[in-house]
Amino acid sequence: MTRIAIVGAGIIGGSWALVFARAGHEVRVFDETPATRAAFMPRLEAMAAASLALAPGQGVAGIAAKVRVVDELAAALDGAAYVQESVPERREVKRPVLAAIDRLAPPEALIASSTSSFPLSTLVEALPGRARCLVVHPATPPHLLPVVELAPAPFTPEATVARARELMVAVGQTPVLVKRELPTFVMNRLQGVLLLEMFRLIREGYVSAEDADALIRDGFGLRWAFLGPLEGVDLNAPGGIADYLTRYGWIFDSMANEAGVEGKSVTPELVAELGGAMRAKLPLEKLGERTAWRDRSIAALRALRRDAGR
Amino acid sequence: MTRIAIVGAGIIGGSWALVFARAGHEVRVFDETPATRAAFMPRLEAMAAASLALAPGQGVAGIAAKVRVVDELAAALDGAAYVQESVPERREVKRPVLAAIDRLAPPEALIASSTSSFPLSTLVEALPGRARCLVVHPATPPHLLPVVELAPAPFTPEATVARARELMVAVGQTPVLVKRELPTFVMNRLQGVLLLEMFRLIREGYVSAEDADALIRDGFGLRWAFLGPLEGVDLNAPGGIADYLTRYGWIFDSMANEAGVEGKSVTPELVAELGGAMRAKLPLEKLGERTAWRDRSIAALRALRRDAGR
Repeated sequence: MTRIAIVGAGIIGGSWALVFARAGHEVRVFDETPATRAAFMPRLEAMAAASLALAPGQGVAGIAAKVRVVDELAAALDGAAYVQESVPERREVKRPVLAAIDRLAPPEALIASSTSSFPLSTLVEALPGRARCLVVHPATPPHLLPVVELAPAPFTPEATVARARELMVAVGQTPVLVKRELPTFVMNRLQGVLLLEMFRLIREGYVSAEDADALIRDGFGLRWAFLGPLEGVDLNAPGGIADYLTRYGWIFDSMANEAGVEGKSVTPELVAELGGAMRAKLPLEKLGERTAWRDRSIAALRALRRDAGR
Repeated sequence: MTRIAIVGAGIIGGSWALVFARAGHEVRVFDETPATRAAFMPRLEAMAAASLALAPGQGVAGIAAKVRVVDELAAALDGAAYVQESVPERREVKRPVLAAIDRLAPPEALIASSTSSFPLSTLVEALPGRARCLVVHPATPPHLLPVVELAPAPFTPEATVARARELMVAVGQTPVLVKRELPTFVMNRLQGVLLLEMFRLIREGYVSAEDADALIRDGFGLRWAFLGPLEGVDLNAPGGIADYLTRYGWIFDSMANEAGVEGKSVTPELVAELGGAMRAKLPLEKLGERTAWRDRSIAALRALRRDAGR
């Protein structure tokens, strides 16, 4: 059991509190707004109740008992081994809060920011404890969507990333490493390009908004609930993704060229890298078995949607 | 009950046969390769067995009894009310097959092509029966992923689109209209931009292939299994998507500008259109209820994944 401090008790902070509490950790929550503090526990309990399927064998009261809202930042940080900063997404708000956390938290505590847009170095470069700081950017909300981006700065030691990774795995999240700093990180860029293409196709009169949504919800979305897009492609050719991209890579290249990107997007180096990554996960002779698993999973999901009235 | 002809019995043709058979239609299948014909029924039965969750109250034998493989194109077309062409994705293969279908099919039969890339006018412009032709492009495979693109040519009458839409709804698919001709239609462009951005971020060293997949599979993919990306955004601001884009549209604009697209992507007209589409589906006062449904659905999906060993 690790003592966790949540600083900033909005949507993200509340969801983080639930992630840690249902994994058995003791959580202290601080928010500078008294009304937010007062409203916090009922909100946490409602979130816990709606997601008990993800906390087998636990009840709302047991989860809530792990969480305490406190009136002072120092009280939240007292004895904390891990701090998750989740204050509003404005640099001028986050910077002084992170500085205060660095000043007040126990020297061995890890300090994580939930920022969805600011590279770590733009938030903590000047802090004495910057080596123990890291961006740990969750999907929204983290108690439902497990993936989190770990985004270090050039000055961040490996050990800081390793400690955050270990804790995230232990609480059931899926940590992903953003290897180089970039604004908005990676996850939201993936959603961003998809939305931008939907916007364009709707603006230019090719498809309605409702139909654009259906193309994902009743199409790729059913597959991506089980497989990432790359693994999805990997199952669509007998020789896996390298085979697929060798045959159809030109389609992606020409789509990119049409959008103004010069040269090849599907380079031989990329094909080799993707092929290597997929084969390290799944040998070619297991492709059929994996495809059958995908198909059973999608059928089960559709049955679940039908029962849920969708 | 409608008599359906499937022409081309590969992956897509086989999956189409299952879609129609489990909906109670009589299906005749033709492929010009004898080995493909010989292998067809066992393959259909295996697909049916793996997806019985989508055919409640039915068994494999009952579904298979609806399907007959025939040795001649004319025998498949005999008495057909709807023809689904699913031969290999090469224009020089598809054009003569569609011409033969137009020549041999009953005059009132609708002729659909499964093409994933060729605009209808480039396939059937010269045919006497072009008015009864339509692209009906499925997700792959259609017996699992229900969405289909209906893509008419400028010369296609409304009634042809309406008939195809009606049949698709009746067999449990989700028809979507591609309002203007464009190569590759809309659905695969949505996957295309997402994959291209993953390729770029992997090539440039921001993220590994495995981690890029996880960002969708354990993030947005869990949401898009229930809600399209636009509806997903709609639930992320108190005032819905119009509110969201009024506040955060600049993020998308700057992402597009960074990628070389000039001007605004999130125009006031687009915001009005998206807001209108979402509010027509869901009044603002039901946003909270819908969000709670989303959260329960995602929790149930994650429990399903856990039980399926993922």
